[in-house]
Amino acid sequence: MVTGSSPRTVGLVLFDGFELLDAFGPQQVLGVLPHLFEVVLLGPSAGAVTSSTGGTPGPQVVASHSWEDSSVAVDLLLVPGGQGTRVEVGNERLLAAVRHRAASAELVTSVCTGAAVLAAAGLLDGRRATSNKRAFEWVRTQGTDVEWVPEARWVVDGKMVTSGGVAAGIDMAFHLIERLHGHDLASRVATGIEYEWHDDPSWDPFAAAAGLV
Amino acid sequence: MVTGSSPRTVGLVLFDGFELLDAFGPQQVLGVLPHLFEVVLLGPSAGAVTSSTGGTPGPQVVASHSWEDSSVAVDLLLVPGGQGTRVEVGNERLLAAVRHRAASAELVTSVCTGAAVLAAAGLLDGRRATSNKRAFEWVRTQGTDVEWVPEARWVVDGKMVTSGGVAAGIDMAFHLIERLHGHDLASRVATGIEYEWHDDPSWDPFAAAAGLV
Repeated sequence: MVTGSSPRTVGLVLFDGFELLDAFGPQQVLGVLPHLFEVVLLGPSAGAVTSSTGGTPGPQVVASHSWEDSSVAVDLLLVPGGQGTRVEVGNERLLAAVRHRAASAELVTSVCTGAAVLAAAGLLDGRRATSNKRAFEWVRTQGTDVEWVPEARWVVDGKMVTSGGVAAGIDMAFHLIERLHGHDLASRVATGIEYEWHDDPSWDPFAAAAGLV
Repeated sequence: MVTGSSPRTVGLVLFDGFELLDAFGPQQVLGVLPHLFEVVLLGPSAGAVTSSTGGTPGPQVVASHSWEDSSVAVDLLLVPGGQGTRVEVGNERLLAAVRHRAASAELVTSVCTGAAVLAAAGLLDGRRATSNKRAFEWVRTQGTDVEWVPEARWVVDGKMVTSGGVAAGIDMAFHLIERLHGHDLASRVATGIEYEWHDDPSWDPFAAAAGLV
């Protein structure tokens, strides 16, 4: 938890087959404010985790702690998507760790099909949420008590914040800065990394492109 | 080199203190077309390389080969930026490896202050190039015979393609697809990862924001 001026701890939940930019887009956005956010990579165990890009084995990144490591208290939880989610929605160990971390987290967020993991963990029941537009029908099956919103860059429902596919997570990350520290700071960070932030969560041309609306 | 229908090999040149999204934005964009692009991570040696985000130590990623490893023939070379470039512009071993790879590469590209490394290697002499808008004056000092273009998302001069800061590299990566495989494929990949591609290299609000124009 945040005490005084300590940075919030952001836990990126990594698993084999996570989509690289889902995790490292937000990592970049939040990571440029190290006085406000400390990003920690959580893996099945400390050590290398293999990403996927478009379904193929991608670069490996090094998790510093396991999903369950109690020495890390997570304020913002972020679950990326990727091909690996097709397996992870049935991984009870991961779902239990996500549920446990979510209970004490200030905000619980997902990018792309990371929402399927949150749904499978039961964390989206009775809530509004979104996900990758190309995988939407599969994601729906992971949470039948979820109000799935097809047309949204990201969706906020209390402490749950879910975003669309891949690049949508970057816009959501700016929203997290906005929510916690104001729109002006979020805009300044976007300018600093030469990114045009879509700051309207209803902006979503990709739902129509995917035939969802 | 590309033979028949083999994918082109993209060599990401990593060094301690590289900016994560500079490398992995383009990796994500090109990596979703594994039949066309195989992305290889080149480091000081095979093994972990520590990124920086905003100047602080960031996540580690695993390089599969060293900069010089002759078992990898690179078609597209990509040099990211980051705080580490301040040191690497004086690293003769890296500059020699970049020069050697550039000589046989089809395209030589950079994101952000990666252009400073290309300039220090002498690869931009007599050419037009751009870089991060917030670090532009420092980058200029690394190549006094370069025609630096402050207002550009990316700049093409023959086989040299340089881009602006961080997120500009994502737009440049789509341009690389466009250049090699057409605008339509680039647009479809952008839609697939829910990214609004700025396909006009002259689009650059960040030069004015940084007081360069």
